[in-house]
Amino acid sequence: MLTTALARGVGAVRSDQTSVRRANLSVVLSHIAEHAPCSRASIAARTGLTRGTVSSLVAELIELGLLHEGGITEPPRVGRPSVSLELGSTVVGVGLELNVDYLAVCVEDMRGVVRYEQRVVRDNRGSSVAPVLGRLAKLANEALQMTGREGLQVAGIAVAVPGLVDVESGTLLRAPNLGWSDVPVAALLGAKLDTSRQLHVENESNAAALAEHWRGAGQGLRSFICVFGEIGVGGGIYVDGELFRGGRGYGGEIGHTLVDPAGQLCACGNRGCLETVVGLEAIARAAGIVPDSRDRPASVTEELVDRATVGDVPTLQALARAADALGAALASTINLLDLDGVVLAGCFGPLAPWLVERVEETLRTNVLSAEWLSCDVRASTLGERAAVHGSAAIILRSILTDPWLARRRKDDLRVAAS
Amino acid sequence: MLTTALARGVGAVRSDQTSVRRANLSVVLSHIAEHAPCSRASIAARTGLTRGTVSSLVAELIELGLLHEGGITEPPRVGRPSVSLELGSTVVGVGLELNVDYLAVCVEDMRGVVRYEQRVVRDNRGSSVAPVLGRLAKLANEALQMTGREGLQVAGIAVAVPGLVDVESGTLLRAPNLGWSDVPVAALLGAKLDTSRQLHVENESNAAALAEHWRGAGQGLRSFICVFGEIGVGGGIYVDGELFRGGRGYGGEIGHTLVDPAGQLCACGNRGCLETVVGLEAIARAAGIVPDSRDRPASVTEELVDRATVGDVPTLQALARAADALGAALASTINLLDLDGVVLAGCFGPLAPWLVERVEETLRTNVLSAEWLSCDVRASTLGERAAVHGSAAIILRSILTDPWLARRRKDDLRVAAS
Repeated sequence: MLTTALARGVGAVRSDQTSVRRANLSVVLSHIAEHAPCSRASIAARTGLTRGTVSSLVAELIELGLLHEGGITEPPRVGRPSVSLELGSTVVGVGLELNVDYLAVCVEDMRGVVRYEQRVVRDNRGSSVAPVLGRLAKLANEALQMTGREGLQVAGIAVAVPGLVDVESGTLLRAPNLGWSDVPVAALLGAKLDTSRQLHVENESNAAALAEHWRGAGQGLRSFICVFGEIGVGGGIYVDGELFRGGRGYGGEIGHTLVDPAGQLCACGNRGCLETVVGLEAIARAAGIVPDSRDRPASVTEELVDRATVGDVPTLQALARAADALGAALASTINLLDLDGVVLAGCFGPLAPWLVERVEETLRTNVLSAEWLSCDVRASTLGERAAVHGSAAIILRSILTDPWLARRRKDDLRVAAS
Repeated sequence: MLTTALARGVGAVRSDQTSVRRANLSVVLSHIAEHAPCSRASIAARTGLTRGTVSSLVAELIELGLLHEGGITEPPRVGRPSVSLELGSTVVGVGLELNVDYLAVCVEDMRGVVRYEQRVVRDNRGSSVAPVLGRLAKLANEALQMTGREGLQVAGIAVAVPGLVDVESGTLLRAPNLGWSDVPVAALLGAKLDTSRQLHVENESNAAALAEHWRGAGQGLRSFICVFGEIGVGGGIYVDGELFRGGRGYGGEIGHTLVDPAGQLCACGNRGCLETVVGLEAIARAAGIVPDSRDRPASVTEELVDRATVGDVPTLQALARAADALGAALASTINLLDLDGVVLAGCFGPLAPWLVERVEETLRTNVLSAEWLSCDVRASTLGERAAVHGSAAIILRSILTDPWLARRRKDDLRVAAS
């Protein structure tokens, strides 16, 4: 999966020797990402490239910091011993998340190792744009300084935001739960960062879905929706192994699927959206918890888990009602999109033990194709960290497609590490 | 657009001289389909093929009956006059439709001219499979005999059915309103036809959407849903100019989107599906019409149109309620799929004057992206004939992709015209 803007950057390259080399670098790097450790000879055998070409490509990938040589793969019967190749650990992607109630950053290397992670809890609802982006930039710059100190090479930065995004321009068009609209995040936040690397802006549910697809509960599912519960409810959709954005790029908004025309008013202005029944605060209120506006979603979720674990009846009833509404909206979604899986993410992850069975039951009765095709309902394995890791993953996966994105540049870090 | 099975047939061809010729035949034929009348010289200029190649390809397309030569395009300043080329009228696609309350056939040539059309009204609900397919085969064979008499060349046959279809095997998996499941339509119906041409089976809403996309109200829309109202309610979806079948091929079932958890029981077994509010019988009952089970949907629709035209209050209220439910389900759909258009088809076409404005109003308030992106709601221009014409169009469009599908074969017609 590559985001549109990045993909276009690669796709626009003319079909000349340079682009052939870039494509071959991608072939070799992607092969090693999937099969490491492996030798130059095995790469040549599996990709159809000549050994000479593979050696030259590998040399460049090592130079870029994307590969490194490990030990001897196996004692040779004849000839020279094979040196094993593995993904390098110096090139990193920086992921940011601007959430309704927290800000987060993580730095992840090509091997999927988290090198740095910070999360600052703070209610951003009703805050104006500038101070929130200022705090996020501070968090990001601390991470960038760390990469400078540790000799890591930042290939790019992506930020996940809770609303509709114009990926091309990096604009957050509408975020009902923040009360923001038309915020040019890429421009405003990018200007505050200590790097000239371009900032990629992505919807939080799409980022979470990518993370779950790549390294989480979505592995092995061809077509699934990652339904992300917090104060709002979002959805990231994969169809046939690719992120599905819909016709014009703003698809996936399952939180505003109608589940009850006589229901509560929603932050979007309508009545009876899924979000009004299965959003975290709605579940909490139905369970008899009156969430203080200063409470963190994570602590509200924990409270619900604690109460459900000891069999608190109002909590179990609230979760059953939420599961039924979630099941109904998912059934409508699957009737339209014919998915083979659902990943319950955000607060739905920890609450999954009380949701999965009822959701599956609703899907069995309400999905037209359920008689012969099942739909797997799984709990997120990445939890609250899915979106920020998905942001880093956007960068890391783009490097697999175009390894030259990892090239060092003079102004990678504007301010030297102190 | 090509249906999966047909597309695979073409895609699987090896990249050798034969496949290059087939691809070039398609390029020339598609060019003429879009720009006719045009000369060999203009085709060469626009496609980049040499004039010699174009002449040879045109000769084969004429031989196949797909092109014919018209008059002189324009008086030449120098050299020989240009002969204009147009699509031929001897190659036809045969479209069939097995509907809940009627059977239909049409024969359409490459120019989009309907050469033959029949429709037999009959309530097929509760009928067993064999007699219904027998009657449809009789209708089809009468059409095939006509093609024999008139020297038309049948390139293929497709049938639209009201339910979930496994396109690959040509099986109707589930048709709630017929009460059928697991019916191998391609095999059973194919065996009764007086031709060995393969029978392609397609969901009726997908067929209707194709017809509207190609020659109807969907022209110019990149991403739209054709929502098809009759006794049941189906949807055919286009995303980015291509038929969208969802993850495993069974998407588009908007009729079973939940609109009211406290609503009526649906034929699918659930409660409160869109179909229970906006299906034709539901609208009629709400309007105070008690449809006799022998009434045709078309006559029920006419009755509703008549009553609405004279301002009958219960009818206007029933249509307003239907419009609101339709709007709500479409808003949920557009939040997921981000479409730029809706085509109201089947009974919704004639009823559109009382639906469009309210549906648009709901989309403006309920679609998250509506502030900056509009969604065009249009009435079908093909009406009740959309699905059967879409079936013929499946064949005709497949010929544009692979003109060799129009080759004559010995057993094209098993029984000579009497």
